[in-house]
Order: sequence, then C-alpha cells, then structure tokens
Amino acid sequence: MKTIRDPVHNIIQFDKNEERLLLDLIDTLDFQRLRHIRQLGLTSFTFPGAEHTRFTHSLGVTHVMKRLLDKLTSLKGDNIQPFIHELKEHRLLALTAALLHDIGHGPFSHVLEKTTKIRHEKWTIAIILGDTEIHQVLENYRQGFAQDVADVIQRTHSSRALVKLLSSQLDADRIDYLLRDSKMTGAGYGYFDLEWLIHVLRIGEVNGEIEVGLDKDKGLSIAEDFVMARYYMYVNVYYHKTSRSAELLIDRIFERAIELNKEGKLELPNDLYEILINGLNPKTIKNYLGLTDNTIWFYIYQWKDHQDPILSDLCSRFVHRKLYKTVPIDQMNEMALFEKVLALSKEKGIPHQYIYLKDEAIISSYEDDYILRNESSSNKKVATEQIILFDKKGNYEELSNISDTIRQIRNKKIFIPRIFMPEEYIKMILKK
Amino acid sequence: MKTIRDPVHNIIQFDKNEERLLLDLIDTLDFQRLRHIRQLGLTSFTFPGAEHTRFTHSLGVTHVMKRLLDKLTSLKGDNIQPFIHELKEHRLLALTAALLHDIGHGPFSHVLEKTTKIRHEKWTIAIILGDTEIHQVLENYRQGFAQDVADVIQRTHSSRALVKLLSSQLDADRIDYLLRDSKMTGAGYGYFDLEWLIHVLRIGEVNGEIEVGLDKDKGLSIAEDFVMARYYMYVNVYYHKTSRSAELLIDRIFERAIELNKEGKLELPNDLYEILINGLNPKTIKNYLGLTDNTIWFYIYQWKDHQDPILSDLCSRFVHRKLYKTVPIDQMNEMALFEKVLALSKEKGIPHQYIYLKDEAIISSYEDDYILRNESSSNKKVATEQIILFDKKGNYEELSNISDTIRQIRNKKIFIPRIFMPEEYIKMILKK
Amino acid sequence: MKTIRDPVHNIIQFDKNEERLLLDLIDTLDFQRLRHIRQLGLTSFTFPGAEHTRFTHSLGVTHVMKRLLDKLTSLKGDNIQPFIHELKEHRLLALTAALLHDIGHGPFSHVLEKTTKIRHEKWTIAIILGDTEIHQVLENYRQGFAQDVADVIQRTHSSRALVKLLSSQLDADRIDYLLRDSKMTGAGYGYFDLEWLIHVLRIGEVNGEIEVGLDKDKGLSIAEDFVMARYYMYVNVYYHKTSRSAELLIDRIFERAIELNKEGKLELPNDLYEILINGLNPKTIKNYLGLTDNTIWFYIYQWKDHQDPILSDLCSRFVHRKLYKTVPIDQMNEMALFEKVLALSKEKGIPHQYIYLKDEAIISSYEDDYILRNESSSNKKVATEQIILFDKKGNYEELSNISDTIRQIRNKKIFIPRIFMPEEYIKMILKK
Amino acid sequence: MKTIRDPVHNIIQFDKNEERLLLDLIDTLDFQRLRHIRQLGLTSFTFPGAEHTRFTHSLGVTHVMKRLLDKLTSLKGDNIQPFIHELKEHRLLALTAALLHDIGHGPFSHVLEKTTKIRHEKWTIAIILGDTEIHQVLENYRQGFAQDVADVIQRTHSSRALVKLLSSQLDADRIDYLLRDSKMTGAGYGYFDLEWLIHVLRIGEVNGEIEVGLDKDKGLSIAEDFVMARYYMYVNVYYHKTSRSAELLIDRIFERAIELNKEGKLELPNDLYEILINGLNPKTIKNYLGLTDNTIWFYIYQWKDHQDPILSDLCSRFVHRKLYKTVPIDQMNEMALFEKVLALSKEKGIPHQYIYLKDEAIISSYEDDYILRNESSSNKKVATEQIILFDKKGNYEELSNISDTIRQIRNKKIFIPRIFMPEEYIKMILKK
Repeated sequence: MKTIRDPVHNIIQFDKNEERLLLDLIDTLDFQRLRHIRQLGLTSFTFPGAEHTRFTHSLGVTHVMKRLLDKLTSLKGDNIQPFIHELKEHRLLALTAALLHDIGHGPFSHVLEKTTKIRHEKWTIAIILGDTEIHQVLENYRQGFAQDVADVIQRTHSSRALVKLLSSQLDADRIDYLLRDSKMTGAGYGYFDLEWLIHVLRIGEVNGEIEVGLDKDKGLSIAEDFVMARYYMYVNVYYHKTSRSAELLIDRIFERAIELNKEGKLELPNDLYEILINGLNPKTIKNYLGLTDNTIWFYIYQWKDHQDPILSDLCSRFVHRKLYKTVPIDQMNEMALFEKVLALSKEKGIPHQYIYLKDEAIISSYEDDYILRNESSSNKKVATEQIILFDKKGNYEELSNISDTIRQIRNKKIFIPRIFMPEEYIKMILKK
Repeated sequence: MKTIRDPVHNIIQFDKNEERLLLDLIDTLDFQRLRHIRQLGLTSFTFPGAEHTRFTHSLGVTHVMKRLLDKLTSLKGDNIQPFIHELKEHRLLALTAALLHDIGHGPFSHVLEKTTKIRHEKWTIAIILGDTEIHQVLENYRQGFAQDVADVIQRTHSSRALVKLLSSQLDADRIDYLLRDSKMTGAGYGYFDLEWLIHVLRIGEVNGEIEVGLDKDKGLSIAEDFVMARYYMYVNVYYHKTSRSAELLIDRIFERAIELNKEGKLELPNDLYEILINGLNPKTIKNYLGLTDNTIWFYIYQWKDHQDPILSDLCSRFVHRKLYKTVPIDQMNEMALFEKVLALSKEKGIPHQYIYLKDEAIISSYEDDYILRNESSSNKKVATEQIILFDKKGNYEELSNISDTIRQIRNKKIFIPRIFMPEEYIKMILKK
Repeated sequence: MKTIRDPVHNIIQFDKNEERLLLDLIDTLDFQRLRHIRQLGLTSFTFPGAEHTRFTHSLGVTHVMKRLLDKLTSLKGDNIQPFIHELKEHRLLALTAALLHDIGHGPFSHVLEKTTKIRHEKWTIAIILGDTEIHQVLENYRQGFAQDVADVIQRTHSSRALVKLLSSQLDADRIDYLLRDSKMTGAGYGYFDLEWLIHVLRIGEVNGEIEVGLDKDKGLSIAEDFVMARYYMYVNVYYHKTSRSAELLIDRIFERAIELNKEGKLELPNDLYEILINGLNPKTIKNYLGLTDNTIWFYIYQWKDHQDPILSDLCSRFVHRKLYKTVPIDQMNEMALFEKVLALSKEKGIPHQYIYLKDEAIISSYEDDYILRNESSSNKKVATEQIILFDKKGNYEELSNISDTIRQIRNKKIFIPRIFMPEEYIKMILKK
Repeated sequence: MKTIRDPVHNIIQFDKNEERLLLDLIDTLDFQRLRHIRQLGLTSFTFPGAEHTRFTHSLGVTHVMKRLLDKLTSLKGDNIQPFIHELKEHRLLALTAALLHDIGHGPFSHVLEKTTKIRHEKWTIAIILGDTEIHQVLENYRQGFAQDVADVIQRTHSSRALVKLLSSQLDADRIDYLLRDSKMTGAGYGYFDLEWLIHVLRIGEVNGEIEVGLDKDKGLSIAEDFVMARYYMYVNVYYHKTSRSAELLIDRIFERAIELNKEGKLELPNDLYEILINGLNPKTIKNYLGLTDNTIWFYIYQWKDHQDPILSDLCSRFVHRKLYKTVPIDQMNEMALFEKVLALSKEKGIPHQYIYLKDEAIISSYEDDYILRNESSSNKKVATEQIILFDKKGNYEELSNISDTIRQIRNKKIFIPRIFMPEEYIKMILKK
C-alpha cells in the first residue's frame, strides 16, 4: 500500500498490486509535470496560500472517486445490483479517468487557453490518445484502455454513471476542488461536510438509466450547501478581479512576445513557439508537455529586462504584482472611456490593447463550462447534469425542482464586466 | 487595512498607514521573488501538499510577531513596564525583521547552500545591506534602519527581547513554520494550541536582561508540547530520506553542470554561473535575486535531454522522481560497500560521486542550527536560547530544568547516516 | 484576568477588575442554575452530542458580544464616531445583557413554556427585575442598572445598536448558538467563518439611527452563508421530528401529573406545583429558580413506577427513549385518522390526548420568534430586523434587496405538520 | 443502518441487522441512564464545556473499536491470519464489551466510589451478570454471552487481543476519551492524529501470544504523541485542583447526610440509602441503576436549605460553586496547619473533616489505575500493558525500550498533595 499524506483528505492510499496502473501513471514525466502547474493559476496574487497544484488535486480527485465508488457499491437493494455491478466492473477505469482528467492543463492552468484558443480538455484527450508515455502505460495495461479513459473524460462513455461521477453537478472533481481551494486560499466558503455527503449517496434509475444521487430526506440540505459553496467560491475567489487582471496581463505579454518574434526582435522558447504557431497537433504534444509554470515565469523574468519598452513594462508589472486596476465604469460610459483611451494610446505611442483590458466574466453556479459547451454540440449522449434526489422507494426528483434556493441560483447568470487599466492611466483619464 | 486570507492564520492584516513600510517591502521584486521558493524545498516529493513558499511563511511570521508583541505589551505589572516600553518602541523594527528574515533563501530554500557553501543567512544580510530595492525602501524609511534590521536578524541587536522573539527556542519563526509545514504536509505532528501559547506568554527579567517566557503554572505543558512538535517534524518530515535523497541529487546535478561548463560543453545560465563561480559579493547579489525554483526546474527540464549521459541521467531521474534509494548499510560494512562502488564506477565509467551519495543528518530538537553556529563563534552577545518559565512573583526557571521530557530531548542528538544509490546499482552490489 | 477554555471559542476571558460585575453575576446561584439546563432540550435524544447547556452558551454570547464591540469601536471614520461613542459608553451594559439574556430558561429550555403558556423571556425579565440574587448584584453595581439590562433584552432600550447586537438577524446570540449547536450535534450545517464575519462588520446610519451591518462588497457572501446556516439548522436539527415528539410527550406527562394531582393521586414537587398552578408572579420566581432539568428527570424516573398506568407508561417511554412515531398522514386524511383514534381511545380507555400528539412546526429562517411576537404588538420601538450592508460611502442596502437567495428564503415559511402516536397504535390503525 | 452524528467522530453507524444486539442494548433503561452521568464528573466546574456524558463516550468507544477491528482484520500476511481469524470471530463480543465497559459508572462518574469504597468496575460486572435488563438482552443473544462480555471487561478473557483492544496502553477507551475530553474541555492537549494511528496499527506475536501494536518505523512518533497527550490531560485537566476540591466536597456532603440520617434528622432517598448502607449486592443493583447525576443534584438543591448548618453550608457552597481553596502548604508545615485547624474546629463547633479536605493525587501517565490494581492481584492472566512496535519482519520492541521520552515518563509518578479549606478559614489561619 502506497500511502500519501494530504492536507485535505489526510491519508490517500494506492494498492501496490491492484492499483499498480495508477502508480505507474503517477510516475510518468507527463504526470509529474502537474507538480509545476498551479491549480488556481494566478489566484495566489490575491490569496497567497493558493500555491497548490494540479498534481495534488489530481490525487485528491482519485481518492474521492474511490470513496464514492466504495460507498455506492456497498449499498443494498436488489433493484440496484445491476448498477453496482457496472460500477465494480469499471472501478479502475473510473480511478484512472479521475487521475488523468486534468492532465492537459498548461501553465497557470488556464492561461494559455485564451492566447492559443485551445481548451485544456483537448490537450487532455490528445495526451491520452497520442504518442505519449501516459498513452503507453494505459495501452500496456490493456489495449484500447486509453480510448476508454478518454471516453469517460469527454463524457461519451456508455456508462453514464462513470461519466457523472467524474463530471456533473456533484462529482469527484468538484468535491475535491471546492474543499482544496477553500482550504488553501483560506476563504472558507467552499467547505461542506464531505462525510455526510458520502453518507447520503444513493444510486438509482432515472428514465431507464443508472444515476448517482442523494437521499431525498437526508441529502437535501447538503446538496444545497454544496451548490452554494461552489457559488460563493466563484464570486469571491475564482472570479476575483485581481486574478482576472493578472490573467489578462499575461495574455498581453504573450501577444507582445509573438509580435516581437514576428519582427525578429525576440526569440521564443522552442516549446512555446511551436504551440503558439502550430496549435495542437500530434507533433506539438511533446512541446506542450515541456511547458509548465516554471517556463513562463523563467521567461517573464528574462523579458522584464528586454529592450522593447512595452514587453519589459508588461513583464515588470507582472513580477512586481503591480497589476492593472479596475476602471470605475459607472463614472463614464464605456464608449466615452474608450475614446479617451484611443487618444492616450496615440499620445503615448502604445497600442491600446496594452493599456485597456476588457473582461467579461460570467458565473453560472449550477452549470459548468464543459456542460455548456457540450450542450451546444450535436452530441446527444451528453450526460445529464442535474443533482438527483432519490426517496426510499427509488422515486427521484431533480434538486432544483424541490429547492427554491437552487432553482433561483440555477437560472441566474451573474455577469461581471470589468475594464482594467494601469493605475496611472486611470488617473490621467479621470482627470480629463 | 490591507487584508490577506491565510490557510494557517485565517486573516492577516497590515495597517496601510502605520505599517506602510511592510507593504512597500512586500511590493518589491526582491520580496515577490519568495513566491517562487518553496518553503520545504523538495519535500513535496514525499509530502505532495508541501507546495507552500517562503512568501506565505514570511507573511505568517510577521503576523505571529505582531500577535506576540500585542500580547506582551498588554501585560500588566510595574516592574515590567521598561521592557514593554522597549518592545513598543521597536515594534516596526520587529515586524520588519520578521518579514525579511528569510529574504536570502535561494532555490528550494536550502539546495544551493550545499553547492556554494554559502548559507542563506549571509545572503539575507547582504540583500538587506547591499544595493537592492529592499535596502532602498528600508533606508527611505529611516537612515540606518537597514542595519537595525540586519542586527535583529543576525542576533546582534542590543534589544535581546527582539532577537529572541525572532530566533530562539520559542519564536515567531518556529511558531509559523511548525503550524504551516504541519498543515501543508498533512502530517499533523507540528500542531499545537497557538491561542493558549500566546495566552500564557510572559515577560520578565533574567540576570538583569529582559526575557520573553511563559507562565510557569499554565505554560509548562504547552512548552513541552511545542518542543516535542518540533522534534516530531524533524524526525518525520524535515529529515525524511526521500527529501534528503532529492537534495543530494540536485547537488550532484550542479556539480556535473559545473564540470561540463568548465569543459565548454554546457552553457550555464548567467545568474547561476556568477554565483557558482564568484560566490557572494556586491555584484552577485543581483544575480542571486534573479534565481528561483523556476530557474532550476527550467534548466533541469532542459538538461534532461543534454548529450552528456551523466547529466541527462541525473536530471531525468530528478524530473521523474526516480530518486536514489537508501542502501541497507547493516548488510555490509561501509568500507566494503564503498570498495564495490569503486569497482562498479570503474566498470561503468561513471565517477563514483554520481552513484554514491552519503548523507549525515543530525537532529537536535532543542537547538537550532543558527544557534549552534553562533555558539562556536567568539560573539558574546548571542541571545540566550532557553525557554524561560516565570512564576507569579517573577522568579524564573529554564524549561529543561523542570521538565524531564525536555531535558532528555535537549541533550540528545539523533544521528541518521544514510547512503543513497540508484536502485539498480544497489541490486548489483547486493548480488555480488 | 479570569480565563475559561471553551470548545467553540477556545479562550474566553473576563477582566477581574473592569468586568467584576460579570464574574459576580456568574457566581450567583441563579446563574449557576443554567449549568443544569440543556441548550437544546431533548435534542440529545436525536443528536447525542447535544449535551451542552445554557451556561456555556451564555458565556459564549458574552464573549461574542465583546468581540463585536471591540471590532466596531475600532472602526475609523469621522461620521461614525458618535455611534462608537455610544457603544463604548454602554459596553458593560451590552455584556451584561448578553450574559443574562437566557437567564429565564426553564427545564429543557423550552419544555415548560408549552405547559405553562409562559414564555422564557418573561421569566428572564422577572428574574432581572424581581427580588433575586441577580437583581441585587445588578443594583449594587448601579441603581437602575437592572432596568437597563431588561430594556436591552426586551428590545426597548433607547440604544438601537445595543438591542440589535443582542437580538436581530445577525447578533451575538445567533452567532454563538449556530456555532455551538452545530459543533455539539456534529451536524456541520451551522458552521460559518466567524473571523471573516467580524472582519467585515460595519457601523452606519440608517434613517437617522445607528445600525450595525456588514461591508457590502466583502460581506455579502458571509451574510448569505450565515442566514443559510441558520436555515439548515432549523430544518435538520431544531425541528427534527424525534425532538419534537419528545417535547410533546413531556408536555403530556405534565398534563397527566396535574390531573392526578387534582385527583389527589400524586403529590407534585413544590416548586413545580407553584408554577403550574400559579404561573409567574413575584412569589413564584424563587420556585422557578429551583427548577432544572435535574428536577424533571428526577420525577420522571420516580413516576415511571407510579400506579397510574397512563403516567407510568408515558414516563417509561420517555426514559427508554421509546418515543411516539410520526403517522404517515398521506395514507389517510387527518379527519379519518382522528375518528379511528377516538374509537381506539374509547376501546382502550385512554384519553385521546395521550395517544395522539399533534405538532405544527413553522420555520421562518429570516425571522425569529421573538421578533414576530413583538411585531404584532403595539410597541413601535421594536428594533429593525434586517441585515444591513454598507458600501464605502456609508450608503446602505438591506440584504434581501440584493440577494436573491435571501429574498426567497425570507418570504418563505416552511410548515411541517406532524402527528405522533405510539408505534403499536399506528400499526393497529393502519391495519384497520 | 442506524446513523448517529457525533462531535468527535462525525458519523457513527450501527448495522440494524448484524449489530442489532448493540442497538437493543442501547435501548435499555440501564444504558439510557448513562445520558445522565457526566463523563468528567465535576470537571465542568473548571472547564464548562465538559458537559458530555458516559453515553456519548460509550458510543464513541464502540465506534473506535470497530475501526480498530476493521483495520486489523484487513492486514495481510500469512503468519497473522490466525490472529485475524480470532478477531473476526469475536467481533461482536469486542463491540459489546466496548459499549458496556462503563455501564457501572454512578453519579458524576467517580464520586460515589470514594464514599462507598466500591469501584465502578465492580458495578459494571454486577450489572452485566446480575438480574438486569442488560443481562437479559445479552443472554437472549446467546447463553453465556454475558459472562464473555464480563471476561473481556475484567481482562480475564482468553483472547488477549480483545482484552488489549479495550484496556491497555493503546485502546479504544483511551482513544475516545482523550479526543472527546480534549475537544469538550477546549484544552487541546489530548489531540492526536487518529487517522494515522489507525493507519499504522499492526498485529503480531509476542512470546507466543497475539498482540496489537504499531508499525515501528511509521508509528513511533504517534505512539509517543499519544502517551504524551494522556499525560498532559492528566496534569492539566483530570487532576485540576478545582475538580478535585469539588469531588472532595461532595464526599463530605454524603458523609454529613449519612450522619444526619443516622441521627434521624434527614431522610435519604431510598436508592441512595440502600447503596450507602448495604453496598453492592444482588438486591442493590436496581437501586444503583436508579441513581444519576440528576438524583444528586436534586438532593443537593434540597439540602442547601436543610436546617443542619453544616449540611446546608456544604450544599450551598457546592451549588454556588464556592469551593474550598488550596492551602499554600509551603507556608507552614502540615502538622502545624492541622493543629490550627483542630483549634478552629473546636472554636466553631464544626468537625474538622468539614473544613479540612486532604487530597493526594498520583499521576502515572504510562499506567492506568485498573492495571495497577490488577497487578497486585494474584491473577496471572492479566494482559500485558505495553505498547508494542513491530518491524516489517514481525520482530517487536516495547515502546519504552526505544523511546527515551516514554521511558522517563514511564517510571515517573507525579504526586500532587493538596489541602483544601474554605477561603475564609484559610485567611483566619494564615493571619494567626
């Protein structure tokens, strides 16, 4: 038994025989790389404690998945035996998908996504199916296993239960990230009683398909508490203005670096160059796997002394944490503001995109990004996204049907438009 | 009031007026750099949660210092008023020293120390007194302030109380690192009841000098618990064999890189080169401040594909976390082992220092390194190092005089000799 | 400084000089009596850990009040100085009112209220103003002080801030009971981040009156979390069916005991007799102060062997924890059920009120009982009951105006009608 | 599955089928009675939070026993299979013994022991083997089962492992009481990492007998921490002078009550009378089971108004918590003090035993009372009392052989002699 201490779950264990595959995957360079990718990207600018990485999160999700499976497969009742059988059969698949679900994250978790327009989920699938060490380990275990894992992660696997356990309203991923992010940031909002949540887990049938849910009597409050926890974390932590400002700043750093590279004034590191220029293809996977937070920080430290005043200014602000500030938009309408920015941009000789960063954050606390994206696709196999509550007879109801709190949260999107500018420019503009 | 959330202390605050100096120091690039230096170096290889940095620790120590001062200066009693006056007078100095006490740490906290033979404390003083942004901020506050801060940190300041509050058996530094390291590693040994410790803080006179101590009746158990907590953390976490193995490995990576550099086969990054070649001098401070964990990781990722088989092997093992294992020494005596290593080294054409790493860890739980080192010096002003217990009349006793537990711990040094070798070589040798 | 350890707040302190009054009050027999009155009455039948008393809760509320005052009086801003002055002036009054706010609770906190139709708040006022040890201590401190304390508790004091700090949507009482009840029951719902709540406390002016509130930006989520915590505790703990069943059972025990007493078949303990017969009057206060949980338990243990089969059956069920069960009302309409009960009652010769207990619990999570009751009164001085959020300029908004979550909770009353009967009678009736 | 929330273990469960016996035992009046017996007797006078009872503790011990058994029976290794088989076979016996191990505690846990000179362990065995509801339930389960349970509790059962799991240096009882008492008092000393302790549990053979122990490498620190936790709790909580003073006071109350009863001036409650006069015999078991804390409190409240000035004074002090204070013995030798007491006693007409209470507390942190007592007996089957550490090969060592900390604690007895007197009498005497 391989034993790991963890600040969130205390003890995490892997069986050296039955779960050898997981240990082999952890030992790959591809997975060790996650040690260098912070879970919350640049959030540590605001919440210094948020220094944890995708590595510990991935171990945590695997641990939670195991606890969910252990509970579900110990439930009694003749009618649910087929479902339990299905879960038992797919146990190692579920754990593997949990372990690898974030393998495609790049530097600062989400930062490159904006610049490259390639979502990390695509990289995840590419790494699992491509010519990588991870892929090799998966196929050595069983031919075709890599595809199975990819199917669970991209929500197309035929076992709906597996898919839901990894990505749904109430899944191993969310459970771990809420507890972990909440603990590490020190902002207690994400806390909920995990032991009770697991205690009230149920399994049942909804429209002829297996569904994981909660006990209706005992689970209603924890279900609400869980959804609210996520909502508070979004409002107070994930979409905090300072982190958003930092993410936009780094996007502009890349934009400037690419421009300078095109003009022959800056050599881009090879791995980064390949991805910025060629995007995702079988040959760039290796380049992607060479990138971590370390790469970006290393170059930003270099570039802060670059001769281009714009690049060096952007990088210098970044390393000093002197980020752009929010413009109090209500003081003038946005068009008027932008006109002034254009004038200022001309006057100073700095392209406006380097002094005017626009952000449009949308929070929807009962929906997840990946679900939204899939919804618009034609893929009809997308797993259901609700939290189901089962009564003792196996009848079910969807959470938002019986909880007013959740229903009003469900249909609400919070839109937070922000404009960031350097502090001194804000002063100039407000004076005028 | 600037407010920061923290996983250990919950809320940390800085007054934007009275503590402006601290905020200005935090905003320097020199201090922001601590965000990239992990508190426990390579311990996260063993305890994955140990991803926290010197940045959060430094904020934590400052916060603890403030709590200690607040408690001590609120104590009543005519006879201690002069001491309280002294503490009040030096309040900002104490907080500044707390904030900057680890400013000289380099990559992975301790890793470069071995290779360069320069301790981080020397860099700390050099950064505070040298031509740096930090120094500038300190001198802008008040001319000569940098020297005062340096004096507190190097334990030569005339206020013994200040010195003790920052570095002694029971100081702000230890309090924070035990709680933080314990929480982050998930190994609960370092936990103690901080609120009670602060509650029983006392101040008094010992041989004509002000001393900080604890209430004899109420504080004996917490004092013992505190010393034991530190002992357990040393045995189980700080001196864990895997972390030690990783630290020795990285030392050999540097050694090989320097060799290759001398042979013209490898270009060292400039900042690293300057320090490895020139050590600490006024010109290299800037180089040192350019180095972080990111630099080392970046180069090790590069070097793992270097053409030199030894360097690439060392780096490859490091990034895969395939570290050298301990040799079960009791199976053969060390001399016999070393003979076989030499033969093997010759046979494989690999210098023995790359396959045979010797470690000699010494734990002394009631003493700290810095104290030991100073002891041997001729400096007579070194602060006393005991934990003092005061009774209600102001009489004092030293902890180890009244606690059997501490007395036996005090005089004990635990010596852990270890030899690390690549797993395959261990097998070869044991077979023979 | 008198120091008390506490499972919720860790360290609670009283200054032996400035807060001598509080220590003197704690030392009265009237207050020590609270050690024998469980905070949650019979809830420990369901949540065994809920063994804590009004004594520890009262100390906790006083401690929280002190923390609220310390925070509020440290706030800066010229415009709020008059408010701060008011709070400082009334500091000891606020603490005293906090300490004594529950002094009128009787056995099992609420159990006698139903039988006697006298609410504990009335006893509280009577004890403070009547011929009691508490009253004497208050008047010894300052003539008229008892009346001031009573005014704060019954919400008629001219300082609206004091009243609100003790009883409002967000007060010292609620803060302590949510944290304490939540911790002791082991049902984590009531948890919220007290440190953050205190951190975002604000004071301001609403319609010309001083109001305590929260920072609008930083306090919205904690305000919601706080209201939701209370809601979850009501649904899952306070109104748990087993506790309700136990409370109704004890009410019937008293009813039967009074009947038997009137028939000369049972001697009632004197203190209980006086109150049951004479209610609240100046002479019965002393009797009331002689009653605790111990008295009731003592007599129920006696009465379980009484010759009256109804009384002995009721008491025997109580001490065995064999409580009446809920009748699944949806299986038959209530009228039909009651008809069957009447038939059964006749057949068995047991008055129907001893086998048919009707409960009508109403939960309103943004309102408190005492507020509702006062609202219907003609008292125009009742303090406002909302949670106010202040922005940086001192503008205010009411929580339910800006929080959808709270708005929908606010206007919702949850009505939980239940019928309890002995298990064997339910079976008989359902069979028919 | 019957589910109970618990402040220490969060969720405690009993299987309604397999563990039906346990639920039936809990439902007896004999067991429900433990709800009215506080775990720490009068310690809540000093630590108000210590309001928890033997009821929750007994549930907790049963839960811990289950966790220990689950861990031990999941261990692998051919050589330990016979031991595991033994544990599996006796599972329900172990749980039952855990549940009932404290069934013999009387009012305030230990208070009657002094007066009656009958230890609670004797009552425990008498209740299990006597004509009681508990006994009936046990025998209904299987004839002879009551004797088996008694054997485990009194440490004479042939399965040494069972005996050790319930009462030894490292047993389910200690584990629960340290965690629970520590949490409830708010004095954090008793905390240790239960998850890790269970993780490192081992089973092995010592001198031909099965022994439960810990992993030598991973378990040494937690073993030390556990022993130290208990030591700190003894010094700071269990033997706190105020609790000791309260316990002696109540002993004198009984003494006086018996005297008055003999003189015909006071009627003792029947149950108490029987025990005080007749001690433990088959007929008095029922009387004993009728006594709880409630009985004692009820009578002390009555007696505080009794006409005998000594009894009313003792009771009045007790309910007001105006306990006797410690006499600073070092100011005069004990003989001189006692002479003055005798003079005072004569002068005031109060027998000296009511104003002079002598206490001689002995703490031995690596030994338990029950072990000491058995040791002196001729019973050779007493289970070993050490904490065993097993290495990977199954070799064992005793903790105090390899831990200096424990060795010095082991052989040390702390003797705390105290004399308590009414405060006013102390003043009189010191003046003289």
